[in-house]
Amino acid sequence: MPLTHFTPAGEAHMVDVGGKAVSRRCAVAEGWIRMEAATLALIESGGHAKGDVLGIARVAGIMGAKRTADLVPLCHPLSLTRAEIDLAIRAEDGSVYCRATVETTGQTGVEMEALCAVQVSLLTIYDMCKAVDRGMTISNVRLLEKAGGASGHWIRDPSLT
Amino acid sequence: MPLTHFTPAGEAHMVDVGGKAVSRRCAVAEGWIRMEAATLALIESGGHAKGDVLGIARVAGIMGAKRTADLVPLCHPLSLTRAEIDLAIRAEDGSVYCRATVETTGQTGVEMEALCAVQVSLLTIYDMCKAVDRGMTISNVRLLEKAGGASGHWIRDPSLT
Amino acid sequence: MPLTHFTPAGEAHMVDVGGKAVSRRCAVAEGWIRMEAATLALIESGGHAKGDVLGIARVAGIMGAKRTADLVPLCHPLSLTRAEIDLAIRAEDGSVYCRATVETTGQTGVEMEALCAVQVSLLTIYDMCKAVDRGMTISNVRLLEKAGGASGHWIRDPSLT
Amino acid sequence: MPLTHFTPAGEAHMVDVGGKAVSRRCAVAEGWIRMEAATLALIESGGHAKGDVLGIARVAGIMGAKRTADLVPLCHPLSLTRAEIDLAIRAEDGSVYCRATVETTGQTGVEMEALCAVQVSLLTIYDMCKAVDRGMTISNVRLLEKAGGASGHWIRDPSLT
Amino acid sequence: MPLTHFTPAGEAHMVDVGGKAVSRRCAVAEGWIRMEAATLALIESGGHAKGDVLGIARVAGIMGAKRTADLVPLCHPLSLTRAEIDLAIRAEDGSVYCRATVETTGQTGVEMEALCAVQVSLLTIYDMCKAVDRGMTISNVRLLEKAGGASGHWIRDPSLT
Amino acid sequence: MPLTHFTPAGEAHMVDVGGKAVSRRCAVAEGWIRMEAATLALIESGGHAKGDVLGIARVAGIMGAKRTADLVPLCHPLSLTRAEIDLAIRAEDGSVYCRATVETTGQTGVEMEALCAVQVSLLTIYDMCKAVDRGMTISNVRLLEKAGGASGHWIRDPSLT
Repeated sequence: MPLTHFTPAGEAHMVDVGGKAVSRRCAVAEGWIRMEAATLALIESGGHAKGDVLGIARVAGIMGAKRTADLVPLCHPLSLTRAEIDLAIRAEDGSVYCRATVETTGQTGVEMEALCAVQVSLLTIYDMCKAVDRGMTISNVRLLEKAGGASGHWIRDPSLT
Repeated sequence: MPLTHFTPAGEAHMVDVGGKAVSRRCAVAEGWIRMEAATLALIESGGHAKGDVLGIARVAGIMGAKRTADLVPLCHPLSLTRAEIDLAIRAEDGSVYCRATVETTGQTGVEMEALCAVQVSLLTIYDMCKAVDRGMTISNVRLLEKAGGASGHWIRDPSLT
Repeated sequence: MPLTHFTPAGEAHMVDVGGKAVSRRCAVAEGWIRMEAATLALIESGGHAKGDVLGIARVAGIMGAKRTADLVPLCHPLSLTRAEIDLAIRAEDGSVYCRATVETTGQTGVEMEALCAVQVSLLTIYDMCKAVDRGMTISNVRLLEKAGGASGHWIRDPSLT
Repeated sequence: MPLTHFTPAGEAHMVDVGGKAVSRRCAVAEGWIRMEAATLALIESGGHAKGDVLGIARVAGIMGAKRTADLVPLCHPLSLTRAEIDLAIRAEDGSVYCRATVETTGQTGVEMEALCAVQVSLLTIYDMCKAVDRGMTISNVRLLEKAGGASGHWIRDPSLT
Repeated sequence: MPLTHFTPAGEAHMVDVGGKAVSRRCAVAEGWIRMEAATLALIESGGHAKGDVLGIARVAGIMGAKRTADLVPLCHPLSLTRAEIDLAIRAEDGSVYCRATVETTGQTGVEMEALCAVQVSLLTIYDMCKAVDRGMTISNVRLLEKAGGASGHWIRDPSLT
Repeated sequence: MPLTHFTPAGEAHMVDVGGKAVSRRCAVAEGWIRMEAATLALIESGGHAKGDVLGIARVAGIMGAKRTADLVPLCHPLSLTRAEIDLAIRAEDGSVYCRATVETTGQTGVEMEALCAVQVSLLTIYDMCKAVDRGMTISNVRLLEKAGGASGHWIRDPSLT
């Protein structure tokens, strides 16, 4: 099975989706950023009182979803009908967890927008905390679920690592 | 130690770097995307002949470095003097490895630009291969090294996971 | 009545409009920039002969309408079907008046695009005249009317200041 | 005195600043958005607990400062060294007050960036509250102070309305 | 026959296309860049082995198509359903030939997107080769064909130069 | 002589200019758009009275210069200190002629910015006149002169076609 982003001659193109039906499409992606316990504590204390790292990361992720087609060369430009970012502090493994849900009504899916939202959201956390912790690591950025369109409903196999 | 991206009142701001010296600054970041062996084989075969996934991901990463300040809310807009993306197929762990090196001559560092380049580069690989492998995972996006500026030379402690 | 841009948990999101009907939607906004009489005279003389401040402000406003979703974090990205900027010199109160009319066919309205067009148009006038008049003031940027969508036709109450 | 943004032939250009000295430059701008008392109360309650309108508007203003040269046609692209947005609820006149402070080290000033930050910040408040109050008005967007550069220190004359 | 991008009063506007039918629309444009034989030989050798100038130009053209409405002031923002760039080395006249095919399903055509894709693609070739050949010339950027919409199918008259 | 935009391994990169001296740099580019006499007459009449095609094309070209690094993948992001677009109606050969002059103070030149300004300016003329003349052709987009930097002053050889 060849990669669809290339013509038979092997040249990159933006795949023709003009023949696809317009339908409501949704994608959910996740990822996390691992950091030192002291850094996480700083974020957590900011969450109640001042210095709202997660609030800013959430906004950045939503805005990032809107910029996806500017960043990913062969990605179709799309209108979005919904973007939601959930961020949670996970003290048990020293990380902030991010999950993005994006929807559109259109001819192609929004997996890239959901993944891009997660990446920009986590990158923004890195930015705000890097002065105290340069070693933070972003991992497990991946698709959890997609719905709508001809390829149907896909849910990540939990046994996949 | 408080987070510098917030004022004493806890409000987000773009940190004042006007008093910092202009110096040559460099940052190196890495990350990888793990995928099925068959997907990796498709990328690898494209590399010699047609359908150059890594070539496109490299360009996307370089362009992504230039868009960092558009994406990360409190990041300073910067001129860049160099951007380089190395991509390598790692058959042994079923992944493509990405390393970005970014430089500027300015008043603030380019860690964010290097990390953003890695993310956009890996995200572009996801985009081009997603039709055959939705389960790919981006991990270990992190800073390896930074040089220049008052905080001096930082190299990632290899014992850090 | 809560603010719709926040989830019940108080987290910002891009509101889900996927269930809304596609309809033709229009919004009209206005605003003005007040300046010294001598500045206004310079603009006015340019209008006939050379140095067309209003022509450039008009183009900037139209382009600004297209950038709204890049600027306003929770605003939905939209296609626009029409954008029109009217600019008028008001010698009696030393101002340039701006009115923007924007339309789309979609699932959400274009109030933000109309307001953004007015702001960018007036900001451009400021830019071109600031060398002779730094004290100019932009005021009364507000929505005049919106039509289309479930919330129906809204016209600004003229008694509102 | 002609407008500097036009050549002697009356054609718009980006003014040549190549001969100006590089210096540290600062600009401060302000503006406000007036709304119904109930809307202001919603914003205020969100500030402590959930639904942080002002936090999001602050981030949008900072990001808006970075986009100024994309929006204002003849404005020079600039690196910024600082951007700060102060937002205050003014219950006495039913408004949110915004003040932006922007700095650069360069050959031209940052008045436009400060004004643009104020506008985008207030526009974002409009967006988040428009579902409950369409009649909000943005006013008195204006420069308060500028420093640095050959034209020296300018402070708004408080008797100017 | 007046220019449609101006109102009867002569003021520029984004033409109202809200009343037009949604249909599938296609446009094809072409252009070329002429250069020294030695430069062309460098590009050609890169094509097989390393230094893939045409591959990068192709990606840049596709991304350029997506930025059209950001660049052309009165151009409607659009979703695109397809973008394809063909690049061919023409040793006989010392040039690289570019042809772009763009499609959308919408209320207005994609001629501008096809032309913009050609321009950005050729400009990118210039950028990558300019260190060895500053005299390269981009010519004959023009529309070949458009289909869809009320104005019907248009094909360039081959006798037009 | 290899192409500098590729590493010895043949991989694209943004060339390292960090070691270059900061100097004042200038580039001048030109191009034209050929059209039917009737189209040119429409533009010309608009120039005096209403429907100012050239004024809008000039602004678009200046803004286009600022977007160059967003469009051309390996182009360095730059501050610009000057951008000027000259447009002239050439009745004798049925064309509009465009010349762009761009300057910066930096570590790399502005040839790409000057060429991009010409392209966007001419593309904007196409957009505004396409309803009456789809066959217009953009040609002879090329560098006329560059000054500043280690490579010194280059002037186009007039015998080059």
